[in-house]
Amino acid sequence: MGKDISMSSDVAIVGAGITKFGKRHDVTYRELLAEAAAEAIATVDEIRPSDIEGLYVSASMPELTVDQAHVGNLAAQELGITPKIVSRIEMACSSGSTAVRNAWAAIKSGLIDTAIIVGLEKMTHNPQMANKGLCIVPDVEYESINGITAYSGFALAARKHMQEYGTTREQLSLVAVKNHSNAAKNEKAQFHSMGEITLEKAMNARMVSDPLNLFDCSPITDGGAAVILTRGDIAKEFTDQPIWIRGSGQSIEPSLGISNIRSITEWHALKKAAKQAYEMANVKPSDIDVAETHDCFTIAEIIEYEDLGFTKKGTGGKFIEDGESRLDGSLPVNTSGGLKAKGHPIGATGLAQIAEITSQLRGQAGKRQVDDAKIGLTHNLAGFATHHVVHILSNEAR
Amino acid sequence: MGKDISMSSDVAIVGAGITKFGKRHDVTYRELLAEAAAEAIATVDEIRPSDIEGLYVSASMPELTVDQAHVGNLAAQELGITPKIVSRIEMACSSGSTAVRNAWAAIKSGLIDTAIIVGLEKMTHNPQMANKGLCIVPDVEYESINGITAYSGFALAARKHMQEYGTTREQLSLVAVKNHSNAAKNEKAQFHSMGEITLEKAMNARMVSDPLNLFDCSPITDGGAAVILTRGDIAKEFTDQPIWIRGSGQSIEPSLGISNIRSITEWHALKKAAKQAYEMANVKPSDIDVAETHDCFTIAEIIEYEDLGFTKKGTGGKFIEDGESRLDGSLPVNTSGGLKAKGHPIGATGLAQIAEITSQLRGQAGKRQVDDAKIGLTHNLAGFATHHVVHILSNEAR
Repeated sequence: MGKDISMSSDVAIVGAGITKFGKRHDVTYRELLAEAAAEAIATVDEIRPSDIEGLYVSASMPELTVDQAHVGNLAAQELGITPKIVSRIEMACSSGSTAVRNAWAAIKSGLIDTAIIVGLEKMTHNPQMANKGLCIVPDVEYESINGITAYSGFALAARKHMQEYGTTREQLSLVAVKNHSNAAKNEKAQFHSMGEITLEKAMNARMVSDPLNLFDCSPITDGGAAVILTRGDIAKEFTDQPIWIRGSGQSIEPSLGISNIRSITEWHALKKAAKQAYEMANVKPSDIDVAETHDCFTIAEIIEYEDLGFTKKGTGGKFIEDGESRLDGSLPVNTSGGLKAKGHPIGATGLAQIAEITSQLRGQAGKRQVDDAKIGLTHNLAGFATHHVVHILSNEAR
Repeated sequence: MGKDISMSSDVAIVGAGITKFGKRHDVTYRELLAEAAAEAIATVDEIRPSDIEGLYVSASMPELTVDQAHVGNLAAQELGITPKIVSRIEMACSSGSTAVRNAWAAIKSGLIDTAIIVGLEKMTHNPQMANKGLCIVPDVEYESINGITAYSGFALAARKHMQEYGTTREQLSLVAVKNHSNAAKNEKAQFHSMGEITLEKAMNARMVSDPLNLFDCSPITDGGAAVILTRGDIAKEFTDQPIWIRGSGQSIEPSLGISNIRSITEWHALKKAAKQAYEMANVKPSDIDVAETHDCFTIAEIIEYEDLGFTKKGTGGKFIEDGESRLDGSLPVNTSGGLKAKGHPIGATGLAQIAEITSQLRGQAGKRQVDDAKIGLTHNLAGFATHHVVHILSNEAR
């Protein structure tokens, strides 16, 4: 079925940036939106408003936290542009990568040449509604109402992964230690100023949902990120350093809740999305030089090592313990600090991942630069790992 | 800029349907979603779950009215499918047509062959949150907070159109009379059982926002609609009666609020979206046999006659007065009953319009069938007419 999309014209990232993440009580929602777009635009050599034919806004819960809907139109206003396609995408924590996938398809279709994708969330000023926003992502009618939230759901996954594969409390905490260490090298990260944390601190933090403690959980964050995509053959008009979207994959479980998915410790939808992306890019997991994966909880990053094919099933705990995913390891993961320590402003997260990999592949990641990074991967999920999007980026065209 | 999209492969509608609109306290949100999808699937000769590679959900306010986010994943669950691209689109009242435009682009890109777009809203059980959902579509920080809602904003447009062009109270009410008359012929319409209404009844209804009275305003509605799209060259595998998307246009004002748009009585963004669609389809307004336009308020339909090019600027009032847009007129508009009398479940509206035109072009519109309808138009807007999507459909391939 279908045309061979891998052979049609490529799409390039010509700009990407993120705002400072954290408590951003210094800006309004619309100011944060504009700031995110400006950060991406600043990384492009030259671009005119009329060049931007597509506008995608990734936002999870503005209706709840800032009492504003129709933020796609708000974005057109703040950017002062009148694009040919405008869409606000909500796919919970994977809104950003889903928006990129839609923009990528629109460019490949010939409808538009160039698009900006802006993602953001403003949550910390309104913790009650931010928590509500998170608690209504899983199946409210059948599960949330009975107490299964993201926290308790991922705690079940952690407990079961420990039971099945012998993953340890220490291995979970090592993910947090690594990601805080990376965030200490990233000035945009929410916990940048906290600096490195010790294993003891991570292991002894107060319990949130057993076995997940405070340092196993990503925080509530304000922040924005944006990415500018264009047709490969005109990318050089915008930048000398285009980054190529070589692969894109997406898959979903036919289940909103946790009770109907095949496995909570082996994410079949992630394996399927990754397979699509690897095949389209014609690369193997061992070709990946750097990755940003969805570490909403430490256990998630460990399962992702496995289901993205970085290490064998059941050995994710050993992978972090051996230091493979550290900045000086064989496959650095979440060099930005990840959701855990860079922060997790829901609508921005998928775009922030792409911005980090773009920096890495351009050799602009500063203190956290991975030597000679040529091929990078981003992985963004939503729900109880029921929805996944994987992108493979390269600084070389096909 | 861009490839000539009009020359690339066409996209066909192979299925489309709507649920009964009105107060649907008999079903839950997810049941309504499944019902909408089933209505569209029932109009396809044969389709397998694995054929559906794209899933788009158009929903405006489930976070507010039914406390559920991530409804894209909910839809995958209810339909029991695992598509390659899944997106929930929110663009307020034009979410449905925007979702169609994204699916259309994804098919044209070669990413997918076939997509289902499901739209719905469940509002009547929770009028407080439904009203909140509507009131946060315009610019909350600068306008809604000062009392400008959709009602008062469109009332300003009506007042000014009256002043500029001599449009009358009676002409506004004639739109309502026409649309209720059409709804009386549409069993799915919210006000089907109300039957026809008299001009006196429409003119003397209680005031909502002067000069707009109750019969100038579309209602709060529960309902769903769905459309199935596929690549033109395989459309006959699904149906003997494909309907072709010949043109698609979208435009947006760089303004969320009413105070910064160029004109509230001449909708430049609509004219731009319509121009794109007409040019892509290579048809003129006079070629249109039947149209569904966005009559959220009676004044909107009058302005749309003008800015879609059905009649000269300022003569929209005369157009309805002369009966041109009646079922027996030269260009029947809102044969379904429109938003006014069929109902306006926000996320479903853009898809319900396409379902109506699909029925018309297939010759299946029953008592409201327009003779020999070959080319139809849909127009869906959001905000203070700041965002518009226009589609041109035909029962003949290019």
